[in-house]
Amino acid sequence: MSKKSDPIFYYKIEVQYMGQGFFGWQIQTKSHRTLQGELMAALEIICHGKKNIKTVGSGRTDAGVHALGQVVRVDIPLQIRPISLVKALNTHLPEQIRVLSAEVVEGSFRPTSDAQWKEYIYLFTTNEQGSVFSEQLMANVVYDLDIELMNKAAKLFIGTHDFCNFYCEGTDVSTTVRTIYECEIIQERPSIYLDRLFPEYFVFRIKGNGFLKQMVRLMVGVLWEIGRHKKSLEDLEEALKHRKSRKLGPVAPPQGLYLNRVFYGEKVDPSI
Amino acid sequence: MSKKSDPIFYYKIEVQYMGQGFFGWQIQTKSHRTLQGELMAALEIICHGKKNIKTVGSGRTDAGVHALGQVVRVDIPLQIRPISLVKALNTHLPEQIRVLSAEVVEGSFRPTSDAQWKEYIYLFTTNEQGSVFSEQLMANVVYDLDIELMNKAAKLFIGTHDFCNFYCEGTDVSTTVRTIYECEIIQERPSIYLDRLFPEYFVFRIKGNGFLKQMVRLMVGVLWEIGRHKKSLEDLEEALKHRKSRKLGPVAPPQGLYLNRVFYGEKVDPSI
Repeated sequence: MSKKSDPIFYYKIEVQYMGQGFFGWQIQTKSHRTLQGELMAALEIICHGKKNIKTVGSGRTDAGVHALGQVVRVDIPLQIRPISLVKALNTHLPEQIRVLSAEVVEGSFRPTSDAQWKEYIYLFTTNEQGSVFSEQLMANVVYDLDIELMNKAAKLFIGTHDFCNFYCEGTDVSTTVRTIYECEIIQERPSIYLDRLFPEYFVFRIKGNGFLKQMVRLMVGVLWEIGRHKKSLEDLEEALKHRKSRKLGPVAPPQGLYLNRVFYGEKVDPSI
Repeated sequence: MSKKSDPIFYYKIEVQYMGQGFFGWQIQTKSHRTLQGELMAALEIICHGKKNIKTVGSGRTDAGVHALGQVVRVDIPLQIRPISLVKALNTHLPEQIRVLSAEVVEGSFRPTSDAQWKEYIYLFTTNEQGSVFSEQLMANVVYDLDIELMNKAAKLFIGTHDFCNFYCEGTDVSTTVRTIYECEIIQERPSIYLDRLFPEYFVFRIKGNGFLKQMVRLMVGVLWEIGRHKKSLEDLEEALKHRKSRKLGPVAPPQGLYLNRVFYGEKVDPSI
């Protein structure tokens, strides 16, 4: 058993997960299976039964949302080579979660506030039939969409705005102002053989300095409304200018959303 | 309730399914969930409670094996537009199964023996890390493979051979001779965004007049052995010539295998 005085070692790990079947990233009660809970359970085994190991994610992902590169700081009473930590974690984690890499960091590393930018992607198809293989990986929109118009709308998100109309209220945030650096919709075809597994699909890609709860899914929901001409570019411009309007569109379902990358920039040596 | 004298209508349907979680195509006991069992349950609802509706698949797929285009004849006491049959079935089938199309056929249509050829694909990656998203869609080979040599080996399968060393014995077949028309391995990269979800992968593609139980997976298993230089092209040539040798390789796992297409050719009008 570890004692309180054990030295702590800090690692930054990059984690991929399939959100289906989990109640989101953040640990909750025991009866709710979460990604953080699974990670802590694996760390407990690796650290010889040490309970409540501290893990800090770059941000929460909601129930059903995936991650291609979630970043987590883990604080463990164990000095271990990063590659060995990756292997040990992957041995004990369920198959829906995989650690991609690990590196040693200072205890001062803050996965949330140190992030320079985050990128999310949202995959959706308008293929009426969908595919049994894409069901958990993309959303299926059952009406035609004006993608050109949606791309014009996507550009309106770029810049610094008060996104008070694009978040799930009730969550405690000091400000709803965020800066979006890039935002676009791209059409993609799967490669030849995956073409039989997946329909043609669209990628909504957004990069910003931070995101509010359900912000990306609310953005996608509005774009769908614009794409089917139920809402206009002017409606979106208004919602980005004024406080407390009515929600413009639905919250897009979680299975299309992926936390793609979190970027921390190059560390500058302060001694130089 | 339908009476015995109800007229029967015959439909050919094309079905896509994800094999994970099913005990293969063929109906078994009630405690074993099968794809045919699910299809029959959906047909029973559509046909107002009529039990034991006859369904004939183009062939069995094993537990965990997927289909992109399984063909099934369904015999129902109901005259319905094919498009309505597709919609009704998709309403009642679980999300892992989807009917892609339906057409009216004669009762003389035999999905198994009328097939001119069948095509299977087998997806595998040699990316050590794999991906949580590809876990149920491809096999992950954890050693390097000589794909060029494997492609030479794949060509040896082409032609008419006794495949007695490439099937799971105990199954009752009149002959183990089959003809393979095409066989190759192709390397593919996922499209830009799916690239973050799926690793680079290989497609083993095989087209033949028929396949024995576990034949494709045993072929893939042998090719892996050849690809890592544990078996030679000569070993494979021997196994295709002689009866009852020892198995050359493992049975490749089911999650990489897809029944891709079943082709019935153009119907020739016998009156012409």
